[in-house]
Order: sequence, then structure tokens, then C-alpha cells
Amino acid sequence: MMGMTETRPLDALDSAKGKRIIVSLKSGLEVVGVLKAFDIHLNLWLEESEKREDGKITKLGAVLVRGDNILLASPQ
Amino acid sequence: MMGMTETRPLDALDSAKGKRIIVSLKSGLEVVGVLKAFDIHLNLWLEESEKREDGKITKLGAVLVRGDNILLASPQ
Amino acid sequence: MMGMTETRPLDALDSAKGKRIIVSLKSGLEVVGVLKAFDIHLNLWLEESEKREDGKITKLGAVLVRGDNILLASPQ
Amino acid sequence: MMGMTETRPLDALDSAKGKRIIVSLKSGLEVVGVLKAFDIHLNLWLEESEKREDGKITKLGAVLVRGDNILLASPQ
Amino acid sequence: MMGMTETRPLDALDSAKGKRIIVSLKSGLEVVGVLKAFDIHLNLWLEESEKREDGKITKLGAVLVRGDNILLASPQ
Amino acid sequence: MMGMTETRPLDALDSAKGKRIIVSLKSGLEVVGVLKAFDIHLNLWLEESEKREDGKITKLGAVLVRGDNILLASPQ
Amino acid sequence: MMGMTETRPLDALDSAKGKRIIVSLKSGLEVVGVLKAFDIHLNLWLEESEKREDGKITKLGAVLVRGDNILLASPQ
Repeated sequence: MMGMTETRPLDALDSAKGKRIIVSLKSGLEVVGVLKAFDIHLNLWLEESEKREDGKITKLGAVLVRGDNILLASPQ
Repeated sequence: MMGMTETRPLDALDSAKGKRIIVSLKSGLEVVGVLKAFDIHLNLWLEESEKREDGKITKLGAVLVRGDNILLASPQ
Repeated sequence: MMGMTETRPLDALDSAKGKRIIVSLKSGLEVVGVLKAFDIHLNLWLEESEKREDGKITKLGAVLVRGDNILLASPQ
Repeated sequence: MMGMTETRPLDALDSAKGKRIIVSLKSGLEVVGVLKAFDIHLNLWLEESEKREDGKITKLGAVLVRGDNILLASPQ
Repeated sequence: MMGMTETRPLDALDSAKGKRIIVSLKSGLEVVGVLKAFDIHLNLWLEESEKREDGKITKLGAVLVRGDNILLASPQ
Repeated sequence: MMGMTETRPLDALDSAKGKRIIVSLKSGLEVVGVLKAFDIHLNLWLEESEKREDGKITKLGAVLVRGDNILLASPQ
Repeated sequence: MMGMTETRPLDALDSAKGKRIIVSLKSGLEVVGVLKAFDIHLNLWLEESEKREDGKITKLGAVLVRGDNILLASPQ
């Protein structure tokens, strides 16, 4: 995804804008959606999103994820 | 909600002002109300709000939610 | 409480000065008192206050609530 | 204690200097002593102090309380 | 790895770019991947990564690890 | 220890340099040693120190205590 | 180690560079290694290191320890 060029992690995340990402939260919850925006705190704005918890999926639509909850974020 | 324009997550949240939002807190509590104001810490001021916990709903009226408690915030 | 004007959450809280507020803490404790002062960390100074925990009420009089303990603050 | 003048919470605490205060910590511990000094982090310096935990009282003498442990501080 | 020259920890980590690192998280989870980028918060961007938890390995591909989750990071 | 002069808590702690202090940590651990140095984060450098946990004493010699672990610090 | 001169805790830690230190983490884990570098967050870079947990020793080689995990650091 980043090739040979050295960048910063948030630059790499920037290349995931408009794509679906899987966000694993510290609590064990997973939120999956299209990454529309993020900031330096890792606050995320996702659309067409859903949360997954213990095998249960709930539609969220547009959602703000507060950055300090995030464990991992992985573009699909 | 954000269309094609790239914005920041809090700009996206700004477009939810005056609308009802569902706020999921880290503790599992949910607060639902009309978003009147927020700041960069994600402190929220909600009106006509209620909290939902374990299926129990309590009317709160106007309420300040301290930002560091927030997990997700989703406009309805 | 805020009408049509867009303000920040702490401006909204400012309009609760001199009134009783219910403060829900992260620990589950509730502190109720007259809001006399607060700062940007949400440190609060309450007077004629009491704490409520598991149905037990204890008079506190004047009390400083350290802001990082706060979950919700709701004017009565 | 603060009368009609609007002040900040730490200004109100300042008026408790030289008096005994009860400090409730997040852990459930209580420290009681004469407030000699504090700073913006709510680090406190107490003298003639004691800690109270589960009904047991231990003399501490002079003690620094690190501010981030504090839940409530109430002048007696 | 650092020889005789005094450097800062993040300079040392910089020499691990392009190599596989094992990242132990506070939660007990392990993430292993090729270190592509990091910043001063220790946010990491890994590629060809996988997570290991209780003996179970899951492919992640490219992943952002939020820095405040990290316990240890060790180049292989 | 501080007499009539108003000072800040860390000024008061400064007067404990070269003396033994008892440091109670958030985890319940106690570290006792001669206070040699501290900074504004309350990072401490102690010498001739030992830790006490559940009635068990372990010699540490010189030790850095990271400030954010500290609950109370009391000069002997 | 510091003699009569007043210094800051991190200056004292600096004198441990190139020596083995025992690092006790908040989680109960211990990491032992040669201190090569550290910064103001107490991020450490250790070499020839190993971790010790519940009597089990694991070789780590070179490792970055994120500073906010640290409880105590003691030069041997």
C-alpha cells in the first residue's frame, strides 16, 4: 500500500479514505464502514457502517468513532 | 452525509447539530438527545435527552456529556 | 435552554450557574448541588451539595468535583 | 463560601487553605488534613493528615496527594 | 543494533523500518508485521501483518496500530 | 513543615530531598527510600530504597518511580 | 549514585545508560536489559533484554518499552 516511500502512519491511513475499513476497539467491539474523515486524534467518521459484537451485527449508518477507543484500523 | 468533499470528523458531526444523535458511552450507557453544541474534546450539550441502560430509560432533559466517556456518536 | 444560538457546551453549562445540577460520575456516584463555578477541565465547585450512592445520601456542603470523574452533568 | 462573586473552582479551593479538608480519592480511600498548598493539577500538600480506609485510620503527618487520584475535596 | 552512539528510542525504532517487528499490546494481543511507518505517539503502520491471540493467528494485511495500546515493540 | 508561607505542593516536596519518604502507589505497592530528585510529573529518583507489598520487603537500591503511579508521598 | 548534586530523575537515569536495568511494568511484567536510550516519556530502548512473567523468562533481544507502562526502573 505504501510502496517504497517513507510516510507517517496517518498518511498511510489517508490512502484508505473512501474505502471500507475494519476498526477494532479496545472494548472488543468492531466497527466496519467507509472511511470518510479522520483527524490527528484518530477520531473517525465512517458511513454505511455497522458494529459487530459477539457475532451480533447492528447497522449504524454514519458514525463518529472517538479516537481513544481504537486498537487497530485495517483497510479492506 | 458528507458527499464528495473531504472534511474532518468534527465538521461531519457539525452537520448533525439540531438533530437527534445516539451517543454510546464506554460504560455501555447510551444517551440520546438533540445535539445543540460540542467542542474539540467532544464534550456534548444535548437537549430533550434520555439515557438508556439495560433497557431502562431515564429522562435527562438538557445534559452535558463529558467527551472522554464517548465511544460512538451516530446521528439518526 | 440554548434557543437558536449556536454555542459551546461550556457556554451552555454557564447558564446553569446558581442552579442545582445533578452530576453523574464515572464510578456510579451522583453529586447534587448548586453550581457555583467550573473551569475548562470541568472541575466543578458546588455548594449545598450531597452525594448519593446506592440509595444512601450524604451531606457534603461545599465541594470540589475533579472534572475527569464526570460522566454527565444535568441542570435541574 | 463564595458568596455572589463568580470565581473559578480553584479560587474557591484557595479559600480553604489553612483549614481541614476531606479528600475522597478514586480508589475509595479518604485523606483528611490541613490544606497547605495545591497547584493546577490538584496536587495537594496536607499537614496533620490521616488516611481512612474501611474504618481504619492511619496517621500520615505531612503528605503530598497526587492530583489525578482525587474524586472530591470538601472543606470542613 | 545501536552500537556506541547515543540515540533516542524512536531513532532506534527507525532502524527497524522495512523489517518485521513483534508488537505486544497491553491487552495481551500480539501484532506482527513489517514496520512501514510510525510517529511520535508510537502509532504504527504495519504491512503483511497478523494478530496472535491465545494461540490463534488472524491475517490483517495493512494495519494501523494506535500507539497508546503498545507495551513492547521488538524487531526480529 | 511549611510554616506560614504559602507555597506550591512541589516546593513542599522539595524540602523532603535527602530525607526518607514513603511513596504509596495506586497499585497498593509502597516504595520507601531517600528522595534524591523529582520533576513536575512527579517522577522520583530514590536511593537506598525498598518496596513493600503484602508484608514482603524487597531491596531496590536506586530506583526511578514513574510519577503517574503515585497516590501519596509522605516524608518521614 | 547521584552524590550531593541535585539533579532531575531523568539525569539520574542517564547515568544508567550502558548498564543493565530492571524495569517493572504496571501489568506485573518485568523487562531486564541494557539501557541504550530513553526519552522524556520514559520510552526505553533496551538490548540483550528478556521479559520475566510468573517465573517464565523469554528472550527479547532489542526492544522498545513504551514509557506509560513503566512502574519502576532500577539500575543493577
